[in-house]
Amino acid sequence: MWLQARQVWMYFRLYQDVPRLKNRDIWNPAVKGADFLLKCLVEKNSCTRCPFSVTKDGQAIKIQRNLFSECFFVMAMSETWRATNVDKYKVAAVSFMQKIRHWCIVDDSALGADDLPGTTKTSKLAVAMMSLCLCEQMHISNLQWENLSGDEEKLEDWSVRNLLSHVQRSGTVVLESVSLSGQEIPGADGRLYVPGHAIECGWFLLQHALQCNNVMLAEKACLCFIDAAFSKGWDADNGGLFYFLDADGYCPLQLEWNMKLWWPHCEAMIAFILSYKFKKETRLLDNFVKVAEYTFSKFSDKKGEWYGYLNRKGEVSSNFKGGPWKGCFHVPRAMLMCENILLELIDSCDK
Amino acid sequence: MWLQARQVWMYFRLYQDVPRLKNRDIWNPAVKGADFLLKCLVEKNSCTRCPFSVTKDGQAIKIQRNLFSECFFVMAMSETWRATNVDKYKVAAVSFMQKIRHWCIVDDSALGADDLPGTTKTSKLAVAMMSLCLCEQMHISNLQWENLSGDEEKLEDWSVRNLLSHVQRSGTVVLESVSLSGQEIPGADGRLYVPGHAIECGWFLLQHALQCNNVMLAEKACLCFIDAAFSKGWDADNGGLFYFLDADGYCPLQLEWNMKLWWPHCEAMIAFILSYKFKKETRLLDNFVKVAEYTFSKFSDKKGEWYGYLNRKGEVSSNFKGGPWKGCFHVPRAMLMCENILLELIDSCDK
Repeated sequence: MWLQARQVWMYFRLYQDVPRLKNRDIWNPAVKGADFLLKCLVEKNSCTRCPFSVTKDGQAIKIQRNLFSECFFVMAMSETWRATNVDKYKVAAVSFMQKIRHWCIVDDSALGADDLPGTTKTSKLAVAMMSLCLCEQMHISNLQWENLSGDEEKLEDWSVRNLLSHVQRSGTVVLESVSLSGQEIPGADGRLYVPGHAIECGWFLLQHALQCNNVMLAEKACLCFIDAAFSKGWDADNGGLFYFLDADGYCPLQLEWNMKLWWPHCEAMIAFILSYKFKKETRLLDNFVKVAEYTFSKFSDKKGEWYGYLNRKGEVSSNFKGGPWKGCFHVPRAMLMCENILLELIDSCDK
Repeated sequence: MWLQARQVWMYFRLYQDVPRLKNRDIWNPAVKGADFLLKCLVEKNSCTRCPFSVTKDGQAIKIQRNLFSECFFVMAMSETWRATNVDKYKVAAVSFMQKIRHWCIVDDSALGADDLPGTTKTSKLAVAMMSLCLCEQMHISNLQWENLSGDEEKLEDWSVRNLLSHVQRSGTVVLESVSLSGQEIPGADGRLYVPGHAIECGWFLLQHALQCNNVMLAEKACLCFIDAAFSKGWDADNGGLFYFLDADGYCPLQLEWNMKLWWPHCEAMIAFILSYKFKKETRLLDNFVKVAEYTFSKFSDKKGEWYGYLNRKGEVSSNFKGGPWKGCFHVPRAMLMCENILLELIDSCDK
């Protein structure tokens, strides 16, 4: 359901935000997809967890020990609700949003991660990024979901606070995992730096900061997340963003560390065009163009669709265009957001 | 404990089988390692499962949902028993060997793999390979461990039968996963073909067949496992064995599919020199030399030790020499076995 939920969200977002795509070819499969997701959950899997993958008829094949499938399910249900106004989607979105808040802030033991004597719990960058993304999604869908007593923290505030705790070493790196008290943890896991993630977090934070008129936070998002990750992560010799880095400059343990993946490049295009809209500095537009030129020349196939996985030199390494982790999400989201921001910029130039 | 147990096994094997290594520099750390493994299990983790990794003082960090850590623990304990004659190692080896038999033949639910409505259990090549490896290890250590009633199958026979069930498509491929009844399963997982695994299984089977004087089985090990995997897996353009293949020739989903790893090359050297000893065909010696030349020129570093991970073209892609999956095992095991077989061959020429 991980990929399917992203696709349902994407279809309904495009349907609603792009006038030329407001048609039945987008609507019909999106509704079918949303109902499949609901059926998987309610009929087949007793509403407890969202499976990562299911059989054709909706039976769980794999349930991950993290909350990301649930996050994408909430995105799909809330966007479907926004488009259709049908209550069942709102109910599903709100009930899982409340579970996600509980897992983030109160207790995540229901996710089933190992709790062994030698294990230390850590804060994960991707969790805080997704929870911030979902809070924004709740605003867009106009869903009131959080009923807080006076001393409870809003999930939005928790997310921002957690994202910032991953900024380490005087603002020069954004680490994937830090301790629950926001300290760097020892070893290779603690040094792991994923430029694409840091950049994606950067534009989520920047977008949030601009909505709250928090200029300090917006500057920090640009400087520590987007600019720093781009300057560390861009391969000066061959172009493209590395997948994994080590904050101390060692070779990361992940064998695919030096590959160039499509999604960090999608996120970097969004991040630089949004930074430019905020700061109007030419270097940000230059970076946008640099990433876009690499991306369109290397990932996009003339016969249609994009490759996902290039080697260090930028040659296609895996020739499939869709797979268990590459569906209908990062490319259309980036196209949608970049098109909208570029149109705004052109529009403001004309005035 | 996965890496540590392999290292303890390797040290004691070298100590016992290589006269020039029969010294305290090998013995002392090996005993220390064996006692650390026992301590981890008995004091820290209540003897139920062997953790994959532990803290410095032996507390479990990660327990895998498979039996491989236990397999390496049995190898370490039985080899330590063979070297030391101290009972506690024998007791540990036998008790875990009996668990492994139960997990293989009767019921593996205690390993904790997900049992979801859409999940289908499959037979894994690596499990049958390890259980055959352990049966051979029990013979070498002279351990009587299997008390069978009349209708129970020996683990050795079960292992051979299961390994052969992975040979599919008229003997042209050895698939990583097949159904429990020995049929090919649909999808990319079902088509996964790992040349290094097939070749490693090949020499285990060949060694077993030669011990039983089963010429038919020995021929099958050479033909379907070693020769077929080498001809499909060897990169004609750049040399070296691919890590993952798809039996239908599609691109495997694993991003690292076209990398060249050290261990398949170690296993291929063992497989070809053992095949040559059995069949005395020049082409097998030629293949041994071809693999050895690639291996020593690409993986071995003049400053000492081997790199583990090269890109498709044979350039070092990860510059570390040890890591979570690369310890003291494949290289010294290959050196030991190849040296011994080559000495036998020279010896038999001299006569």
